[in-house]
Amino acid sequence: MMKHLHEITPLHAQYTHILDHGDIATWPDLFTEDAIYTVQSRENYDAKLPLCLLRFESSAMLHDRAYAATQTIYHDPYYQRHILSQPLIVSSQFDAVHCETNYLIIRTRRDALPQVLSVGRYIDHIVQTAQGWRFAQRQCIYDNDLIANSIVLPI
Amino acid sequence: MMKHLHEITPLHAQYTHILDHGDIATWPDLFTEDAIYTVQSRENYDAKLPLCLLRFESSAMLHDRAYAATQTIYHDPYYQRHILSQPLIVSSQFDAVHCETNYLIIRTRRDALPQVLSVGRYIDHIVQTAQGWRFAQRQCIYDNDLIANSIVLPI
Amino acid sequence: MMKHLHEITPLHAQYTHILDHGDIATWPDLFTEDAIYTVQSRENYDAKLPLCLLRFESSAMLHDRAYAATQTIYHDPYYQRHILSQPLIVSSQFDAVHCETNYLIIRTRRDALPQVLSVGRYIDHIVQTAQGWRFAQRQCIYDNDLIANSIVLPI
Repeated sequence: MMKHLHEITPLHAQYTHILDHGDIATWPDLFTEDAIYTVQSRENYDAKLPLCLLRFESSAMLHDRAYAATQTIYHDPYYQRHILSQPLIVSSQFDAVHCETNYLIIRTRRDALPQVLSVGRYIDHIVQTAQGWRFAQRQCIYDNDLIANSIVLPI
Repeated sequence: MMKHLHEITPLHAQYTHILDHGDIATWPDLFTEDAIYTVQSRENYDAKLPLCLLRFESSAMLHDRAYAATQTIYHDPYYQRHILSQPLIVSSQFDAVHCETNYLIIRTRRDALPQVLSVGRYIDHIVQTAQGWRFAQRQCIYDNDLIANSIVLPI
Repeated sequence: MMKHLHEITPLHAQYTHILDHGDIATWPDLFTEDAIYTVQSRENYDAKLPLCLLRFESSAMLHDRAYAATQTIYHDPYYQRHILSQPLIVSSQFDAVHCETNYLIIRTRRDALPQVLSVGRYIDHIVQTAQGWRFAQRQCIYDNDLIANSIVLPI
């Protein structure tokens, strides 16, 4: 178990850093080729309803979103900052981990006080690949149905 | 020291998950039979005053609270989400750890923006038992005397 | 890498505890003699502009600030609470680590709801010394240019 905690912590930290600072174009590199990435309300998730705010089913779709978020969407600029809690390892095998991690994202807009953009949990399926540990699935389940403004950058 | 950090991290993550998602009825299982659980303002804690918002002195009292919180208290429904900082291990022995961990709890109510429900620190005495590591004492010391609405689920 | 994660976690936790609770006078003890500590806006940092909100270039300057913050500055009293995310280890050697860690500081004033005081990241250069791991440099880069009231205690 702890071995895996050691391996997912750097992946989580790298993911966070890329979204908060880095080149969003490299964000898809943290996923497998056929990865599934969803952003869904907790209400729908709990009710087992399929509707998601975002649903991407391949690395190519993630690249498409990264391009859209940085090159085509016209929006009020903002900074975002992820704060992660300690991961809960639900199950693990030699080359795969299923874990859940609470997250909080604070958005700061120019000349405004910081506010909560999204709060919820990641439900991850992380696998060992030739390039290291990667997300085979990341579900971002957010508590706050009401979002101040809109979500542009990935959660 | 680090050995203990490895053992309290899963307990912290499990505690958080149970309160944010799970069956509150299992929350007392993370404590010893004669555990002490308190929720107290930082002001009173620092002044060594005894008054607590909540004070439970056995596993049975925790079960009672879990029942009350889920079956008897009539309240505006809300989601809660714990975000924990890195634990500070104050002292440790072979089968016991004294540690402190900053926490932040975000509450989200239907059709409302998320807000801080409680912020403060856990002061824990965690012991090794036949069932694994358990809380012999958890003191929840909150900074914010003023609470928006009320605290229903455990901190 | 993980070895270093084990060594910076206690330093981060101790730093946080000292600022949120402890004797601020001991805060400089976590730095080397010639440490550099800065608090700077992300905007200036990204633009490579030199202006900082605070810039201290030695342990002596940190002691001076600790004295000022606790003995001379007249301000509305408040509690603060750091919540740290998982550290990203950028590079590491046997006796030095360069890492980045997202932080969130919640301030609580008497009779008021908690609010975000500062959100951003620490960029740290941590070195092994005879007294243990210490900060040779800590840059506090905050997202929120607009600060509710003012920053008195160190970030």
